[in-house]
Order: sequence, then structure tokens, then C-alpha cells
Amino acid sequence: MKIIQCVPNFSEGTDLAKVEEIVSVFKNKPGFKLVSYEPDHNYNRTVVTLLGEPEAIKEAVVEMVGKTTSLVDMNVQRGEHPRMGATDVIPFVPIRGIKMKECVKLANETAALIWEKYQVPIFLYEEAASSESRVNLSDIRKGEFEGMITKIKDPLWKPDFGNAEIHPTAGVTAVGARAPLVAYNINLDTKNVKIAEEIAKTIRHSNGGFRYIKAGAAELVDKGIVQVTMNITNYKKTSIYRVFETVKMEAKRYGVSICGSEIVGLVPLEAITESLTYYLGLTEFDMTKVLETHLLDK
Amino acid sequence: MKIIQCVPNFSEGTDLAKVEEIVSVFKNKPGFKLVSYEPDHNYNRTVVTLLGEPEAIKEAVVEMVGKTTSLVDMNVQRGEHPRMGATDVIPFVPIRGIKMKECVKLANETAALIWEKYQVPIFLYEEAASSESRVNLSDIRKGEFEGMITKIKDPLWKPDFGNAEIHPTAGVTAVGARAPLVAYNINLDTKNVKIAEEIAKTIRHSNGGFRYIKAGAAELVDKGIVQVTMNITNYKKTSIYRVFETVKMEAKRYGVSICGSEIVGLVPLEAITESLTYYLGLTEFDMTKVLETHLLDK
Repeated sequence: MKIIQCVPNFSEGTDLAKVEEIVSVFKNKPGFKLVSYEPDHNYNRTVVTLLGEPEAIKEAVVEMVGKTTSLVDMNVQRGEHPRMGATDVIPFVPIRGIKMKECVKLANETAALIWEKYQVPIFLYEEAASSESRVNLSDIRKGEFEGMITKIKDPLWKPDFGNAEIHPTAGVTAVGARAPLVAYNINLDTKNVKIAEEIAKTIRHSNGGFRYIKAGAAELVDKGIVQVTMNITNYKKTSIYRVFETVKMEAKRYGVSICGSEIVGLVPLEAITESLTYYLGLTEFDMTKVLETHLLDK
Repeated sequence: MKIIQCVPNFSEGTDLAKVEEIVSVFKNKPGFKLVSYEPDHNYNRTVVTLLGEPEAIKEAVVEMVGKTTSLVDMNVQRGEHPRMGATDVIPFVPIRGIKMKECVKLANETAALIWEKYQVPIFLYEEAASSESRVNLSDIRKGEFEGMITKIKDPLWKPDFGNAEIHPTAGVTAVGARAPLVAYNINLDTKNVKIAEEIAKTIRHSNGGFRYIKAGAAELVDKGIVQVTMNITNYKKTSIYRVFETVKMEAKRYGVSICGSEIVGLVPLEAITESLTYYLGLTEFDMTKVLETHLLDK
């Protein structure tokens, strides 16, 4: 049996009636599970996590794009998170019994259906990208919805599916395939966001840090703390514990303590066992020692 | 679907041809999985781990007792591990969709079948025990195979199934039901086994330590180190990390370092997430955040 994860993000996180209507396409469908959906008021964005069979998920996600296209008008949408479309991004992630190549194919099929049914132009990204310059989602999204009106007319930014013109209300959508990532935030016991920014620089790849870390800083105003917020794009090569201990070490420079950390969304079991192995000095330990692993084959 | 774990222990760990013949009853059977079997030469004992449906496991385990009864003669069996029968102990552990009460019933059914088919007397233990004095396996096993010849004639030690007479070559067997436990060993960088014994005393319940720890000491002569070896009988109330950090703290008294630890057999996911939560200070983290958890319901 083939299992994928799909984490579509759409640009509505404040009007909860609309969020419910959009998410309704994922409820009580055979072949996959709606694991969670997390509307974020400040971001004005909702992250959905689906797990199950590729075909069933593809169909439901296309249906979701129909809903967001009719319910979200990007001309009036405002929020703290960068965005370029009513459905902003749809990544397919291989989990079990399926190769990356098949997820790339799935991304192409999904993109074709979205253009055909709703006339929303599609950029393919990450492993599904048609060129090096489209691998990083942030490069595609630069300029956001407002900038895309002209950007899409540049021959360098001709969409992979659809015409060189944005959908008037739904903008454009990125569809891609990627390895599982870990979304991980570390809390610092200070109100000074500059400290989080400085530490983010030391750990992220783009400034000389770990190869598989993309990191930034965030203020949690209501809690009076700041966060180093990151994606670990390859948890097999950059472990959670290593980043945690490094951030702790760097925070000492500023006389600041770590006050907890959080995993956003789902984390693969292998990432968990790897970090616990470090802390307990476990010998010959991996996910095959976890009881539940043996229930997955049944 | 009901899932149990069963961890039968039999008293052969040196003659690998015999081990293979005994374990063959678990291979390619529908309804359950042979997760592992670990023959221990010094112990002259093999621990088998099965996972799957109760009825299928019950039948195969009874078949195994037939094999051990014909292949293992306790009159000549010698090993470092205490033992009282060719099949020494058969614990049933509820995992998913099944209550302890049902595992107690399963233990009773298995015991009846073993006596009926092979005339091996059975003591029920732990949750299946018929009296307080039979809850602890070590109380039942006291005197071992050799002592059981007379012990079994004491009205206090009349077996729960069968006559007050041991099987002439296979001795007696304990069959029980219990909660999942974690078998966990912590390595100390010293050759002095007295230090491991002293530390084991500080953590085990019987000497004033943690409520759900049974611990002892072991020498790993070939590695030149010693071990605090334990069973965590309720990992929800006595966490792995807490024992590890306590042993580390106690070891400092002797100027000894921890040089790793090991989990023997399988560990429930919940025990893993609980300990990692401590080390990373994770907020709102439990096994539902682990991707694989969501594949179990399918």
C-alpha cells in the first residue's frame, strides 16, 4: 500500500466558517485521514495535514482548490504570512511504499487538474521543479500575490501549467514534492527578537549553519518570549537534538535561557528515536525497537 | 482488531538447532508476527517476541510448549538465568483494542490447553494470579526446577492447572497477563559490580526507590563494564529519562561515568515520546504528533 502525506496551505485563517467549509472536502472520505487542520489568525492561513493513498488525496485536494477559489479573494486577503494564492502551496511527501518520483508525477497530475478545472496557474517546486530557479518556494513566492500580476508575464516566470496571467481572485498556486521535514521552534526566555535573529543566522544553511536548516525569528508577544523558528529539511542528516543543543549553546552568549521547544505538525518516528538515542546514549536503538513500528506492516 | 504482545521464554539458548526447531512454530503463521527471538548463550534461554491476534498467538504458543517439552530436559539444563521449566514463562500483554481482563482469560485458556495436551503444571502470575503470593514471578520460581519437585507438593504451592507433581523433564510453567514493561539497562564505566548493586538498590522499589522499578546488577565481563539492569513495570508513572538521570546522579558518588544504555526487546512509543519531551522541553507533545501513529488506525 502506498502512503503519502500532503500538507496543503490555504490563505484563510480568520473566518472560521469559511475554513470549515473548505476543510469539509477532507472529512469522511475513504482512502485517507484528515490528521489535523490549524487555522492561524495572525497568519490568516490554514495548514492541513492529510495522510493516506495518493489518488484519494489528489482528488480531494483538487476539490479543495475549487472551494478556496470560490471563497477566498486575494485582492482583500491580508495576513502576516507571505502568500501568492487562495490555495498557496500543495506539497506531496512520500511516506511508505512510494518513491519521490511517483510524488513528482502526482504533483504534475494535480497541477494539470487544477489548471483545467479552475484556471489557476501552477508553479511546480522542490523535487517537482522544472528548473533550478524554481526549487525554493520562497523564490517562486517573492513579490507575493500583488507582485505576481507582473512577475508571471516575465518569460522566466511563465507558469508550469496555465497561461502567463494570474487567476483574478485566487492568484497562483505552487504544487510540489519533497521529503518529509520537521517544523521545529525553540523558545528563548527574552523579549528581544534580535537575539533570536542572530541565533537563527548561526544555525541556518544560508548563513553558514547546518546544511538542512532553514531558520528565522518570531516574536510571541502574548507570551513575552521569542522563538527561533525552523524547518529541518533532512532530519536524517541534521538531527533535532543537535539543533536544540546548538541553540542552547549560542543562547548562552546572550545570557538567555531556552524555555522549551515545539514540533509543529507531524514528526517522523525516526527523527524521535534518533534524538532520544543521543540523550540516553542508547546502543543499537532505532525505530524497529518501537513496538508500534511492527503494527504498521499488518 | 485486538492486538496483544506475547513474550514466551524457553530454557534453551545454546543448542541453536533446537532453538530454531522450537521457534519454527512461529514462522509464517497468519494472524501474528514473530518480531524477534534472542537466544542467550550464558543464560541458556531464549526470549521470543510475538505481536498480533490473541487466538492465533495462543495456538502457536501452546504448540511451542509441545516442542520445548520434547526437546528440553530440565534435569540436565544449566544456565545463569533462574528457571523452573522447559517453557519457563508466558506473559500476555494487551496492546490495542483489548483489555487486561481479556488477557487474563487468555492466560487461563492457554494454561488449560498446556496441561491438557502436555501435562505440564501451570502457575498463573501477575494480573492472572490466583492469590497475592503468586503475583510476583520470582516468588513462584524460587527454588527453581530442582526445588519445585518438593515445593509443588506444599498445599500453598498447588498449581493452578494440573496435579501437584512436576512434569519429569519439562518442570512447570508460569502463564500470566501483565502491562507492557520496558526492559532497560544502564552501563557503568567500571568493572566493580558492587557499584551497580548499590545503585540498583537506590532506584528499585523493594529498597525504597521508584515505585515501578525492579533492578539488579550484572557484569559484562567481555566488555569490562557493569550494568544496572531493570524492568520498568509502569513506564507511564516511572519514566525512562528519570531513571537514567537518577542513575547518572548516583554514579557520581563513586566517580563513575555512564557509558550508554540499552532497551531490550520492544518499547512502546509513548515511553519514547515522554522521555524526549523532557530533554527537549517539548510543549504539547505526545505520540499523536508522531506521523506513524496515524498509520495505525488504517
